[in-house]
Amino acid sequence: MSEKKEYVTYGSCCPGTPGAKKDITTCNFMLAPMAGNFEEIILGALKKLDTSHVWTHTDRMGTVYRGRMEDVLDAVMACFAYAYRPDVHMTLEMNLSHGCPGDHDADFVLSEEAKPANEEGLKNVHFPVDCRWELYPLGSDDYMKGIADIVNHSIDLGLYKETGHGGTILHGDVHELFDYFRWVFGQCKANFSHFAMEITMVVNAPD
Amino acid sequence: MSEKKEYVTYGSCCPGTPGAKKDITTCNFMLAPMAGNFEEIILGALKKLDTSHVWTHTDRMGTVYRGRMEDVLDAVMACFAYAYRPDVHMTLEMNLSHGCPGDHDADFVLSEEAKPANEEGLKNVHFPVDCRWELYPLGSDDYMKGIADIVNHSIDLGLYKETGHGGTILHGDVHELFDYFRWVFGQCKANFSHFAMEITMVVNAPD
Repeated sequence: MSEKKEYVTYGSCCPGTPGAKKDITTCNFMLAPMAGNFEEIILGALKKLDTSHVWTHTDRMGTVYRGRMEDVLDAVMACFAYAYRPDVHMTLEMNLSHGCPGDHDADFVLSEEAKPANEEGLKNVHFPVDCRWELYPLGSDDYMKGIADIVNHSIDLGLYKETGHGGTILHGDVHELFDYFRWVFGQCKANFSHFAMEITMVVNAPD
Repeated sequence: MSEKKEYVTYGSCCPGTPGAKKDITTCNFMLAPMAGNFEEIILGALKKLDTSHVWTHTDRMGTVYRGRMEDVLDAVMACFAYAYRPDVHMTLEMNLSHGCPGDHDADFVLSEEAKPANEEGLKNVHFPVDCRWELYPLGSDDYMKGIADIVNHSIDLGLYKETGHGGTILHGDVHELFDYFRWVFGQCKANFSHFAMEITMVVNAPD
């Protein structure tokens, strides 16, 4: 008798119907400080920020935050900023998603505080960031027009550098980029039932 | 008189119609060896592999390879393997895409050699890899079923570890994972006009 395998089905999900009924944003992210003391930098940053507004899980594949979009972006930005060293080349790879039909109302914090937990501590933190990102509106026929409108706003803001193969290249201060992605997220929530975005930020790249 | 801005439109693209007429696969990737000699490791790997079967471009946002799917995956795997050090924690973040309506028949090499350029040199290279990945079939209504079928094949192969929030976690030898993603790519080309996948591989993560 062969062993019965446990296959995935993603529930009784159907496009256009988020699996979670609550307004949960998920961010999977990974910091990679290219220095011998990477553990100290990553663990120090994870400990320094205030995660009281998000659900968190860290393992060898990085960290997951789940909660309100504003709180999730605030927590990831805090982690990035607290890991930043002026002399260390570092990447932050993050995958944000919302409305996945396979998601569930589990593993989340939805804070009722108006203000994200780390906003105050971050307001004077500034450093330049290079960024590549891709937006994936799922289950929509008109997704390329939606993406173009969103990218064009980065041109208005002066953050757009170029259209690369398979993604868009931006450059700006860390606050400008996170503010833009907050705006992008709002646009996507208004227009797409399920979407994901992949954002890679780079600091202190050697010339 | 205000300056006229150059907005993006992604041409006259429409979902279901790839912008490039040729069978071009794009991979944007970034290696992050977490060690003081990261530049030596990355540049050494980029120089060691044979890139004669792919179009390549490297800048501060990483490297792009464009060509046949088999050659692109071969080149990325060679770069990863040649950067691998048994004592260095490293991530490889790669974004693969095919069939984008905004793509063009430019910046590519389509080799006519049956065998990928680095296959022979890699056949005895083995190391364990942790992996998180996400698949995005664009412009399709039935995408969640398509994703589940593809993930279930990783269960059959013994590579599946768990379904994380917003992605799937795999573990296996570097060859097993690249073989699986070659199979995934073939399945996607047969079923989806436009798709992208985001794959993050991790080696030597501290416990």
